[in-house]
Amino acid sequence: MKKKLIISGVSAITPFILSAQSEQPNIIFFLVDDMGWQETSVAFYKERTWLNNNYNTPNMERLELQGVKFTQAYACPLSSPSRISLMTGQNAARHKVTNWTLFKDQSPDRYSKNKEVLVPEWNVNGMSMAPGVEHALYVSETLPSILRKAGYKTIHVGKAHWGAIGTPGEDPLNLGFDVNIAGHAAGGPGSYYGKNNFSAAFRNGGPEWDVPGLEKYHGKDINLTEALTLEATHEMEKAVDEKRPFYLYMSHYAIHAPWEEDNRFVEKYKQMGLTDFEAVYASMLESMDKSLGDLMQHVRRLGIEKNTIIIFMSDNGQPHQVKTYPPLRGHKITPYEGGIRVPMLVKVPGMTKPGSECNVPVIIEDIYPTILSLASATKFAENMEIVDGRDISPLLQGKKSMDKNRAFFWHYPHIYDVTPYSIIRKGDWKLIWHYADQRAELFNLKYDIGEKNNLADKEPDKAQALRKELREYLESVNAPIPRKKSTNEPFRLP
Amino acid sequence: MKKKLIISGVSAITPFILSAQSEQPNIIFFLVDDMGWQETSVAFYKERTWLNNNYNTPNMERLELQGVKFTQAYACPLSSPSRISLMTGQNAARHKVTNWTLFKDQSPDRYSKNKEVLVPEWNVNGMSMAPGVEHALYVSETLPSILRKAGYKTIHVGKAHWGAIGTPGEDPLNLGFDVNIAGHAAGGPGSYYGKNNFSAAFRNGGPEWDVPGLEKYHGKDINLTEALTLEATHEMEKAVDEKRPFYLYMSHYAIHAPWEEDNRFVEKYKQMGLTDFEAVYASMLESMDKSLGDLMQHVRRLGIEKNTIIIFMSDNGQPHQVKTYPPLRGHKITPYEGGIRVPMLVKVPGMTKPGSECNVPVIIEDIYPTILSLASATKFAENMEIVDGRDISPLLQGKKSMDKNRAFFWHYPHIYDVTPYSIIRKGDWKLIWHYADQRAELFNLKYDIGEKNNLADKEPDKAQALRKELREYLESVNAPIPRKKSTNEPFRLP
Repeated sequence: MKKKLIISGVSAITPFILSAQSEQPNIIFFLVDDMGWQETSVAFYKERTWLNNNYNTPNMERLELQGVKFTQAYACPLSSPSRISLMTGQNAARHKVTNWTLFKDQSPDRYSKNKEVLVPEWNVNGMSMAPGVEHALYVSETLPSILRKAGYKTIHVGKAHWGAIGTPGEDPLNLGFDVNIAGHAAGGPGSYYGKNNFSAAFRNGGPEWDVPGLEKYHGKDINLTEALTLEATHEMEKAVDEKRPFYLYMSHYAIHAPWEEDNRFVEKYKQMGLTDFEAVYASMLESMDKSLGDLMQHVRRLGIEKNTIIIFMSDNGQPHQVKTYPPLRGHKITPYEGGIRVPMLVKVPGMTKPGSECNVPVIIEDIYPTILSLASATKFAENMEIVDGRDISPLLQGKKSMDKNRAFFWHYPHIYDVTPYSIIRKGDWKLIWHYADQRAELFNLKYDIGEKNNLADKEPDKAQALRKELREYLESVNAPIPRKKSTNEPFRLP
Repeated sequence: MKKKLIISGVSAITPFILSAQSEQPNIIFFLVDDMGWQETSVAFYKERTWLNNNYNTPNMERLELQGVKFTQAYACPLSSPSRISLMTGQNAARHKVTNWTLFKDQSPDRYSKNKEVLVPEWNVNGMSMAPGVEHALYVSETLPSILRKAGYKTIHVGKAHWGAIGTPGEDPLNLGFDVNIAGHAAGGPGSYYGKNNFSAAFRNGGPEWDVPGLEKYHGKDINLTEALTLEATHEMEKAVDEKRPFYLYMSHYAIHAPWEEDNRFVEKYKQMGLTDFEAVYASMLESMDKSLGDLMQHVRRLGIEKNTIIIFMSDNGQPHQVKTYPPLRGHKITPYEGGIRVPMLVKVPGMTKPGSECNVPVIIEDIYPTILSLASATKFAENMEIVDGRDISPLLQGKKSMDKNRAFFWHYPHIYDVTPYSIIRKGDWKLIWHYADQRAELFNLKYDIGEKNNLADKEPDKAQALRKELREYLESVNAPIPRKKSTNEPFRLP
């Protein structure tokens, strides 16, 4: 033992040494990109599926056995909106970063061929803690900035994707983080390969995709997921050495495109008869899972296991390039469950019951008040009144429900891949409002998780009630509404 | 999905399909080479140790949570004796393959510089099912040959090490196996690297170390442990396709020398500050653990999880090149717990309680009658009267003890690294008899698992009683006894 002799010495033999840190728990938020609800060997559906048996994520299975599995966890249908919700606790309809961000003042809607829809103004430049940035959500505090006030060391590792290039929000250090490893404006990496310098140059991609700040791995045979894990581990060690509680936002670029096989894991999947693409994808999932396992190992090794919260989540469903398998319909960006339902596992030592399951719906903006609550940091927040998320600690404590009348909302007024929509879910009912053709879809998820049977005509009262509640919510937060090109009039609300 | 469409189709959605095979359970015996009791992140001691926190074996942890953990499982102090016990159910003192085998009629004792001890005749050529092989244990049946009679497909993958070069026992196909992948006389691989053709040529080693039969991986960037796993998976699939219950003897060469890093896993350990050797070793352990996880994945994928037994074990303690850490004393070949106590995990679906622990001592020859019992195959065995092992099914069913008066024996009449010894353990007491200096060591393992306090003088009655029982056992099985060179007389028994 060369480097970590002191720490190792402390933890020798004795099973769990309570950290010398304060009693504030360390928090690891482990966020995967573009990982669908079924793309894991953890069964989030009521039965194991074909995908559960073909993908292999053993460390997620370990976390499942150590904590609580949320079977109805939701995110936004794509990356930037989900990530802004994480930072602010706000619903996308309120924060208005409703599509993905990258270039200043350039909306990805421009790629769409749709000729009927005018996309409304939205926060195309993402978020900012500096005032005066046009087309950006201004906030005076973020989840990490509040945690920092509460004494936390706030560590960002991986994908940021909060602000457009050339705006302050592109740099996590401007959003409340003490440390930034590899985060910038882009929502995907140039390459997962150190040999490619994590740059898109090899595929003639622009420099905006080049992962920043990992120069020491350039030219080496190392996967980005591994490099980020090594860096995150190092930062955890430093925080423990400094006797500071830490918030590690471990935000993997994986398994976002470009899909590049991780050769440490791919052979098995090839032999299984998966298609080449599926095998590559599976290898990236297992690579991500190794990262989770490595962090879990280090948490134990550092003697902080009993004082460290781990929250696992994805930012949206699987991309459309991945074939959809039962039971869910749809993929990333669509309003169906395949686009918004995500894997979620939470371990809060001393609170969550090992191996338990929670079937109550929760949504990504809930993470903000929940982490503040778990960190005893809510008192440092100044604007809780504009937070849509709810503290789900009661669910973590094993309560079977929180508020049965709670409604969940999604808002996507864009034409990228789909036409604009808003969604409300309440109880088992889910209503999707399609602006372009002024059409509602109504599903009962309890009996129809695959969203095959539109009950809008059969249950008009239910549909009307949900439309009303959705409409009123959108109005209450002043949600941006798409317009019809021919008339320049806003489309009718739900 | 190209190849396994039919199987995948069957298992789609439905969580566990009972196999179309007969009700005989499939059995995977997962044997690791030279893996010590503490060389895993599973805590086999009453508390987590430094090694538990530095090594990472997440799939062993999953198996621990799914089955029963044996905290006092024993093997012989080295490879060939353990493996012959597995095949015959006999104690080493009875089967007399008491040292490691390789070249015909050549005992490794010849490497010793000891000038006082004459090693007795032993079965230097290993075992044989063909009669008439000199200096070999003749048996008319083996564990796999009996299982084959009972309808099993018997699959050997990995290290065999049962018979000397040029004798029938060098080939697993002559010992009851239907299939042999990569098994032959040698107890270690030439190299773990496909790029080295798994041959020792690169290090000027002899051809006896070249792993046979994996030509399709030669020249490729693949680790031997991975190649064996892919082959084992393929054989499991074939057996399921043939609707035959299988006995998979998954016998890894890992983590036996040569110690060659698995670059899929080594970086983390280097960063942790482990010595170069420890990091290499740790990477080989995690590589082995990935194999376990891959087999577990395939068992599930093939729809046979509820009908497949998994037994995990090592064949002896860690080699002397690996630094010894608390709590155990000694290493491979020595009589101390570090040489003979091994990790053991057992999952028998419907029998073992998930996450349970068994503190009753068991020993490697118990595997033979236990597997026969679990497979309902005992009736096909013809010579159970010469079996020393006991069916430990009651322990698997959760019973707290079997026979409190049971004594355990070890016998090593050799001068390779150590001087000759025999051991008896009964209850918490362990007596080691050293032939060369006619000395007894007596330890109470309950209070002194590190074997630091020799109580032979303080507890003369206990020592005498154990010496007598050990002596009588050795006489009863006609154990080979070393002699003194100067007089050519046998050393006195315990």
